[in-house]
Amino acid sequence: MDLPDSPPASDPASASASDPDTPGSPIPVGVLGGSGYTGLEVTRLLARHPAVELRFTSSRSEKGAPSPAPGLPFTAPDPVAAAEVEVLFLCLPHGEAAAWVEALRSSGKKPPRIIDLTADHRPGSGREAGAVYGLNEWSRPQLAGAEFVANPGCYPTGVLLSLLPLVDAGLVDVERLTVVSAASGVTGAGRSARTDLLFAEVANNFRAYGWGNRHRHLLEMRALLPGVDLLFQPHLLPVPRGITETIVLPVRECVDASAVRSSWDARYSGEPAIRLVGDRLPALDEVVGTDLLALGAVELQDVREPAVLVGAALDNLGKGAAGQAVQNLNAIYGWPTEWGIRCA
Amino acid sequence: MDLPDSPPASDPASASASDPDTPGSPIPVGVLGGSGYTGLEVTRLLARHPAVELRFTSSRSEKGAPSPAPGLPFTAPDPVAAAEVEVLFLCLPHGEAAAWVEALRSSGKKPPRIIDLTADHRPGSGREAGAVYGLNEWSRPQLAGAEFVANPGCYPTGVLLSLLPLVDAGLVDVERLTVVSAASGVTGAGRSARTDLLFAEVANNFRAYGWGNRHRHLLEMRALLPGVDLLFQPHLLPVPRGITETIVLPVRECVDASAVRSSWDARYSGEPAIRLVGDRLPALDEVVGTDLLALGAVELQDVREPAVLVGAALDNLGKGAAGQAVQNLNAIYGWPTEWGIRCA
Amino acid sequence: MDLPDSPPASDPASASASDPDTPGSPIPVGVLGGSGYTGLEVTRLLARHPAVELRFTSSRSEKGAPSPAPGLPFTAPDPVAAAEVEVLFLCLPHGEAAAWVEALRSSGKKPPRIIDLTADHRPGSGREAGAVYGLNEWSRPQLAGAEFVANPGCYPTGVLLSLLPLVDAGLVDVERLTVVSAASGVTGAGRSARTDLLFAEVANNFRAYGWGNRHRHLLEMRALLPGVDLLFQPHLLPVPRGITETIVLPVRECVDASAVRSSWDARYSGEPAIRLVGDRLPALDEVVGTDLLALGAVELQDVREPAVLVGAALDNLGKGAAGQAVQNLNAIYGWPTEWGIRCA
Amino acid sequence: MDLPDSPPASDPASASASDPDTPGSPIPVGVLGGSGYTGLEVTRLLARHPAVELRFTSSRSEKGAPSPAPGLPFTAPDPVAAAEVEVLFLCLPHGEAAAWVEALRSSGKKPPRIIDLTADHRPGSGREAGAVYGLNEWSRPQLAGAEFVANPGCYPTGVLLSLLPLVDAGLVDVERLTVVSAASGVTGAGRSARTDLLFAEVANNFRAYGWGNRHRHLLEMRALLPGVDLLFQPHLLPVPRGITETIVLPVRECVDASAVRSSWDARYSGEPAIRLVGDRLPALDEVVGTDLLALGAVELQDVREPAVLVGAALDNLGKGAAGQAVQNLNAIYGWPTEWGIRCA
Repeated sequence: MDLPDSPPASDPASASASDPDTPGSPIPVGVLGGSGYTGLEVTRLLARHPAVELRFTSSRSEKGAPSPAPGLPFTAPDPVAAAEVEVLFLCLPHGEAAAWVEALRSSGKKPPRIIDLTADHRPGSGREAGAVYGLNEWSRPQLAGAEFVANPGCYPTGVLLSLLPLVDAGLVDVERLTVVSAASGVTGAGRSARTDLLFAEVANNFRAYGWGNRHRHLLEMRALLPGVDLLFQPHLLPVPRGITETIVLPVRECVDASAVRSSWDARYSGEPAIRLVGDRLPALDEVVGTDLLALGAVELQDVREPAVLVGAALDNLGKGAAGQAVQNLNAIYGWPTEWGIRCA
Repeated sequence: MDLPDSPPASDPASASASDPDTPGSPIPVGVLGGSGYTGLEVTRLLARHPAVELRFTSSRSEKGAPSPAPGLPFTAPDPVAAAEVEVLFLCLPHGEAAAWVEALRSSGKKPPRIIDLTADHRPGSGREAGAVYGLNEWSRPQLAGAEFVANPGCYPTGVLLSLLPLVDAGLVDVERLTVVSAASGVTGAGRSARTDLLFAEVANNFRAYGWGNRHRHLLEMRALLPGVDLLFQPHLLPVPRGITETIVLPVRECVDASAVRSSWDARYSGEPAIRLVGDRLPALDEVVGTDLLALGAVELQDVREPAVLVGAALDNLGKGAAGQAVQNLNAIYGWPTEWGIRCA
Repeated sequence: MDLPDSPPASDPASASASDPDTPGSPIPVGVLGGSGYTGLEVTRLLARHPAVELRFTSSRSEKGAPSPAPGLPFTAPDPVAAAEVEVLFLCLPHGEAAAWVEALRSSGKKPPRIIDLTADHRPGSGREAGAVYGLNEWSRPQLAGAEFVANPGCYPTGVLLSLLPLVDAGLVDVERLTVVSAASGVTGAGRSARTDLLFAEVANNFRAYGWGNRHRHLLEMRALLPGVDLLFQPHLLPVPRGITETIVLPVRECVDASAVRSSWDARYSGEPAIRLVGDRLPALDEVVGTDLLALGAVELQDVREPAVLVGAALDNLGKGAAGQAVQNLNAIYGWPTEWGIRCA
Repeated sequence: MDLPDSPPASDPASASASDPDTPGSPIPVGVLGGSGYTGLEVTRLLARHPAVELRFTSSRSEKGAPSPAPGLPFTAPDPVAAAEVEVLFLCLPHGEAAAWVEALRSSGKKPPRIIDLTADHRPGSGREAGAVYGLNEWSRPQLAGAEFVANPGCYPTGVLLSLLPLVDAGLVDVERLTVVSAASGVTGAGRSARTDLLFAEVANNFRAYGWGNRHRHLLEMRALLPGVDLLFQPHLLPVPRGITETIVLPVRECVDASAVRSSWDARYSGEPAIRLVGDRLPALDEVVGTDLLALGAVELQDVREPAVLVGAALDNLGKGAAGQAVQNLNAIYGWPTEWGIRCA
């Protein structure tokens, strides 16, 4: 596992000789698991990416049906086709990527580069060795030329991109509890036929889940924020997509919301997929359908323990999955991070 | 202002000689502001209450239109009719109740008892003097025979009924921040023609508001929890009704979730409008359409600062408004608290 | 199959000697399939019915979990218990009722009366022989004392109760097409874990289905409206419950909307579950959560072919299923039709 | 008023000398009424159009706030700025466009070309003289070089593009009633602060409106389909955007659904904004967020009067407003119709 503070895993030049500003001849790519919600979004983005050629998007259950890529129906998952593309995106159900990765990388032949959007190789999974953790704005040096990328979870993307610069800058009082109250649209749970995800169960409802710090994404957050006393409480929203994270951040004495915003400015200025909204909390409708992460921080009045209120919003299928995967593709090849993603 | 720990304001016997178990001759009641969301719900409940006769429900804008009370169309607000009922429910826009109360109580004639569902006379409003704060399960002794009741806000109802027993029992570390992350359906904002409450703005969206501890309900919570370091962050849910409050409660050493649940058991056992759900957080769909408050508490694993996670759920129009108002009516007259409310 | 115009199937006196106006000793009843959407609603209504005692509500998948009947958890389906109640409600998946009915009615012992809410024994199913079709307001004479009732489908309930009086009165030009455009909330499809009923597929969407006159409910409508040239086109609404049916009715010369309304008045005056709304089309929110059918009829301006626009609205789980089943129970025993149902 | 069968209003060459396949120097354009739902969508599309430069988008109520065009905040409506662009899009409230048009076109100076998205100059409005009706695929010859375009209503766009080819081909029995049952998302009603458009009123609801053939769009449809006996019944859907129209089409003897599909094929083959879906009815989610009109036709089984079922789906803000306006811009200048619109 290459953690964000490690040196680059390899020379970016080895990945591509293409001029970073204009697309060269397109790179062949493929998608395994293209008909889940994440796979549909990855397929949609890759079909319009200026520097790739989408060779296939596979689906066991919808083989032959039209995919979101014009003219490219879903195909059955095919190990031969998978091995022949230059970059392979894994959008399989959690737990199914590990076997594909092992098969491809132990085949004796040069395997495709892999961007794994499942939870199988993320920090805290036990299988993270050998994978670059693709927290894009934070891991970009390690991503250049990377052969194998573990794409972050949707919730950790917001929490980590919010908090890493602040912890780094020494603003956070890590001895006190950092409280993350999060809410996600239902596509975050995947496209599986579960009774609890039926329209009639989700509409008009709102509920906490994974309570008591039992959500698996917490392991991923903790691996990157080892000293922080984290509480993570997710809720299920009656919307198709989008995540908000409202964070009560325990800060050191004399740290205020403007110090938080300055840290982000310093770190994310010029980043096209990060939108700093200033002295307010961003709403879901500012990010849904985009690949943006929106961040804001406000002062808390009338509290005795020093704390700052941080808000993050992202589309779980955009910056929380497909958008970041495409940014990671761009980082591997040294292309501009905004190629193929939606920043407005 | 009679705070919860004060003695009863008056002798309950003075309110009614009716047998507490079976309705006697019905008490005449009326509703001012019957066509807002709260007023509609109060009208609906009073129309079915076994011990009252609803004489009128008024609406400036919908005069003559059918109300939810069968056979009782909305009437124009009428000071004479208002003065002639025995109990008057004020469901007016915030800010409009104070003038009615002053006019009725300074008329020289015996005024009706008043249950004010607006924010005008709640703790922290500056006008709370003379009003019993109707946090029903907590204020019942003061409510017996009360002439003037300030019905609590929807958010404070859940926060206060959750926390008061725990603070009382000494479980809470009041020096540390108590974090309340809340979410409400849109009827909590009233039935006013505001662009930001249009369907197309609210659907598919979720957003924080009143950030930085600026929501007016915080004053009401603080008045009742004076020593507690409170942070209250509300969000707007794309649902018509219902509130959840997820509270990170800083507890003293050795206090765990079961101690929290025991405090509630001791205080609320036998209360028909309180549902203790145990070792989990309640969901919106357990309470919407009812007059229940559901409470649960779970242990937090892997945190260093001792804290317990508390969840409260209620219908903002039920226990958060009309249901509690009807409970308060019942308390004034010494009737069973479940008369006229929906506990299942 | 006893069609509506047949004489009563049996003497109502044989069903119950109870005084029709006040409940006597409660009749033991049970529900098979209590955890589907229809079963939940039937359980909810029976738990509050003044003249029955709900002995059990069964669920294979949720055995032991709380049901909507206070204090009555779901039990496993049990043939012995099923045989011992006086009235058994079948809320099973379509296709599973027939075997239960056959087993119970061929056991040699006196079977319970059966109210079958599945499609298994409805007109047009091929298995309707021996069942009284429980189109309540229309079939009441046949329902008195009935042993076996096939409860109508949700869509046919609205179409048939709208059109039967009009056809009977000779208002309809049966040679021309009667166009029914209908829309239903998703609970109409049952509580099965199907991908196409997931929140993320249904929200923000609206789609026709069963197009080209292929919906199975059409057989049921045609059996009762044999001469009418019917077109029935249903759509799936992004709401949990409720049905509207907008009908373009080809009328004979000189027939207008007021003639339509007069026919309904003559037939349905005094019926508590029918609400005649007059010269407009009823909306979903007038009936959701109730057991009402709302009917309206309006004149069409500027058309050359004579036609009247008819609107029907009902809750598919209320009047379209559980509410009508309870009305049918009431009819069997000669109880008032409003017992246990929600008419406001 | 130039009806579709008239000759072109002017020489397309006079509008622009630009090569039709690659954008030349951008045309300056502006939007009046940019913060309504239609105006937001027009602003969004024009900001990305390859051949125009969006100079301003105005909003009285949101002056100074960010618009969807990056870097272009809303400005106050300004007659000088309006007169200086080459093409002006009017997205004002209905009734406010007429005065602007009159002022601009009678100023003595050469006015901008105008594309009016309000109802003010549509057929049947009484003010249609001088305007080309911009039913794009049907009116394209008249649009070349047009100075003043009345953009069609959302409902008429679907009805007319469906039916005009069929009437033209003689497939329709115009003596019999053509029944259009339509449903629209709430943005179709505009972004006005009306109580009946609040989230809590629209969610979980579905209702007919404009019943009895009283919707103003019917005038527009009839002007283009003068001989057809039309019934148009719209409904309000609990979704932000999208329209479906289910049409029962009375056809001449021996005309079937495949004849309908063939007529569309002949007329619309190669049209990027028309998607012919074949032997089924299209769903809302196939078109929302796009500028497509989807059309399908299916055979009706078991009916005596010959009829074909036609389904149309479009986004009321896309093909039903902004998308068609951009197509009309393209037609004025002879650019490819797909420039700036979303066809997938």
